[in-house]
Amino acid sequence: MIHPALVALTARFGAQIETGSALRDQHGAGDSWHAAAPPDAVLFATTTADVSDALAICHEHGFPVVAFGHGSSIEGQTQAVHGGLSIDLTAMTAILRVSPEDMDATVECGVTRQQLNEHLRDTGLFLPIDVGAHATLGGLASTRASGTMTVRHGTMRALVMGLTVVLPDGEVIHTGGRARKSSSGYDLSALFVGAEGTLGIITELTLRLTGIPEAARAGMYSFARISDATQTVVEALQCGLSLNRIELLDALQMRAINAYNKTDHPETATLMIDMTGSAAQVAADQDTFGQLAAENGATLAPCHTTEEYNALWALRHSALYAARALRPGCKSLSTDVCVPVSELPGIIDAIQSEIAAAGVVAPLHGHVGDGNFHLVMLFDPEVPEEQTRVKQLNARLVAMALECGGTATGEHGVGLGKKAFMEAEHGGALNLMRRLKQAVDPKGILNPGKIFDL
Amino acid sequence: MIHPALVALTARFGAQIETGSALRDQHGAGDSWHAAAPPDAVLFATTTADVSDALAICHEHGFPVVAFGHGSSIEGQTQAVHGGLSIDLTAMTAILRVSPEDMDATVECGVTRQQLNEHLRDTGLFLPIDVGAHATLGGLASTRASGTMTVRHGTMRALVMGLTVVLPDGEVIHTGGRARKSSSGYDLSALFVGAEGTLGIITELTLRLTGIPEAARAGMYSFARISDATQTVVEALQCGLSLNRIELLDALQMRAINAYNKTDHPETATLMIDMTGSAAQVAADQDTFGQLAAENGATLAPCHTTEEYNALWALRHSALYAARALRPGCKSLSTDVCVPVSELPGIIDAIQSEIAAAGVVAPLHGHVGDGNFHLVMLFDPEVPEEQTRVKQLNARLVAMALECGGTATGEHGVGLGKKAFMEAEHGGALNLMRRLKQAVDPKGILNPGKIFDL
Repeated sequence: MIHPALVALTARFGAQIETGSALRDQHGAGDSWHAAAPPDAVLFATTTADVSDALAICHEHGFPVVAFGHGSSIEGQTQAVHGGLSIDLTAMTAILRVSPEDMDATVECGVTRQQLNEHLRDTGLFLPIDVGAHATLGGLASTRASGTMTVRHGTMRALVMGLTVVLPDGEVIHTGGRARKSSSGYDLSALFVGAEGTLGIITELTLRLTGIPEAARAGMYSFARISDATQTVVEALQCGLSLNRIELLDALQMRAINAYNKTDHPETATLMIDMTGSAAQVAADQDTFGQLAAENGATLAPCHTTEEYNALWALRHSALYAARALRPGCKSLSTDVCVPVSELPGIIDAIQSEIAAAGVVAPLHGHVGDGNFHLVMLFDPEVPEEQTRVKQLNARLVAMALECGGTATGEHGVGLGKKAFMEAEHGGALNLMRRLKQAVDPKGILNPGKIFDL
Repeated sequence: MIHPALVALTARFGAQIETGSALRDQHGAGDSWHAAAPPDAVLFATTTADVSDALAICHEHGFPVVAFGHGSSIEGQTQAVHGGLSIDLTAMTAILRVSPEDMDATVECGVTRQQLNEHLRDTGLFLPIDVGAHATLGGLASTRASGTMTVRHGTMRALVMGLTVVLPDGEVIHTGGRARKSSSGYDLSALFVGAEGTLGIITELTLRLTGIPEAARAGMYSFARISDATQTVVEALQCGLSLNRIELLDALQMRAINAYNKTDHPETATLMIDMTGSAAQVAADQDTFGQLAAENGATLAPCHTTEEYNALWALRHSALYAARALRPGCKSLSTDVCVPVSELPGIIDAIQSEIAAAGVVAPLHGHVGDGNFHLVMLFDPEVPEEQTRVKQLNARLVAMALECGGTATGEHGVGLGKKAFMEAEHGGALNLMRRLKQAVDPKGILNPGKIFDL
């Protein structure tokens, strides 16, 4: 029997609703190690009104709804674990407004940062978010994503000025606005940013832009030990250098990058640094950084040309693929803890000892200016013990991170993969999250089974 | 008859509870034009456990609770309009932890920014929030305050990393943590920041610090018209100059400042600028700013010494007192709209025309880098028509601000004074705020009557 919700949805949407199994399978899986869980149907929404009508119908019937962008989330956020409707938002790609004087823009949720930045090119502005994934801005907001430029520009939390959100019953609300700051009531934008589609579906975003800097300089700095690299990071942050990116890669990750890209960079703990600002400032700051790094024993390889600059960041962006290529055919569980920067050497040392003892291959890269790093732990999906082992290592790492005031997830979100850690991380605050969920979505139709159980 | 809640509170707290009328009067008034509304009693809390026990008792008896710091809020946030208990938190002044390497600190809610910055002096760090008021950090967080350095460092929203909060029933929760970013569940810190004590009482804050810059340079730039000044601001923001403060004062405000401080600065639209960073950078940026200002017709008065620098910012901080001194014995209603920066010339011109037509004295100063400005509208409290007139002008200004995507309040909060504008500003989102309030504080004991009515 066809679910009455699907009957009503089909009556409203006709050919915009599809139920082919390949399509459903694709929409029930993200870029993750989590088992796929297909929805019952996929709706290709083109307007906020579509989303509103769909939610009104699903709400009436208590039918689950999962928002879907480019499926790049890696903690199972898009898996339809209770079935229901996956709403594909990738056709909502209108850039609705750009105000160069005010340095802000309003876009539909299916726009990617790449599309927006291409559109902005002639304005001298850009959206300063640089994640590896090809993701929609609605999705990036929903996981409170960040990436390599966060040390300078903050996460999606800082970049979202306002949202259009469809609530579970189909009501459309607007949060925030175009003011650069406001003390007007509860911060509803912040409530939906990072809620992973469990409280509402974001259909439009007003975003804070920034000026394309006059100059950018990058460099690669090779250290004997990870602690020498992180000590340099602490010193650089305290000096207030014009850091735009500050990325750490361990020896194994550098070996993977060399193999993948056919390069021959030193295979040791490495910092990749990006300075942006005025030409004079970045030149001076790069010199200062070089001195700090040298005092911590580094060998220096600053970039001198735009080609070298681009090649360096292309290397960095290959890190995940290079890591996965170390064991072809394997899946990967990417850890995502974020800790106070001073805790990085200790926690990396402790977990790498355990990883070595367990015989797991797990190159490390991360955004160390924020205290966030990823171990890409590879496992053979055909060997259940391997998956168990990497899950145990991840749990150990999260426990260590929480112990020192950190978080289980710096940027990937909770989804299915980190639910088990929420009680330990939040304590009584987790129940408050549950109360908020029940207040906003009393029928529990939005992305059920994610972040926490009710 | 003594309310049973007071009997229970007195049994628990003894001499920490006071009911003297002078004390109650003081705790029922802020630094505002709103009528005082004294609580039934004042509790001098010294620990989170005190606050927790007090809330548990008040919750049981449905007895209202208002959090109180230094009483500097200006929209009636501390008025006990339904009576009840005022919890004075000014004795909670412990600085619990400072981590220079991680550039963060944890403090009790009664600490002021002045106390914290004094404590931090030897670390080379400071908390970059600069409001005129002598206020507690708990209060600053609760109104999502900001001030003059927001254009560079963001509001309390950006500076709060985590909180200890007592919920209405006395439960103590911890939000956020020491990680610089997190995607771990709902952003509960952001829920309490700006909630004006209606959802919980903040008792501890973990705050992001920043390095004291190597150099700072300030200057005063006098323009023929406000639009020339704001055009300079737009251009400076787009250039990405190292602006730390960018303050606008109109001709009347400058006249008030001269009279109050016995100075003789040009009495015309004025920008006061602060650049911070490396010595080379701020020198270069001050030159660039001077060129932009000169192209917009300004006369320049850059500061050359630390004494001149300090004198300039002392002048700026005298603005409110100088404004009030224009009509001794008067009260003032300070507007607080925040709009996209490009809208500033139009909205200021429009409201100043109406102010002039109404014969109201209202000097203007504000944080124009954020689009936020204050008109200090003076009125004689003995002449009811004067108060009516300034309220009408404020309502006109808010309507214009909302029309162009702005907000009724950039930094003062809603309290009692801006409740009337919430429906127009938030539309359906206001009902969502009400649902959140009911989920967190179902008995409605926390700061009842503020922000919105249920």
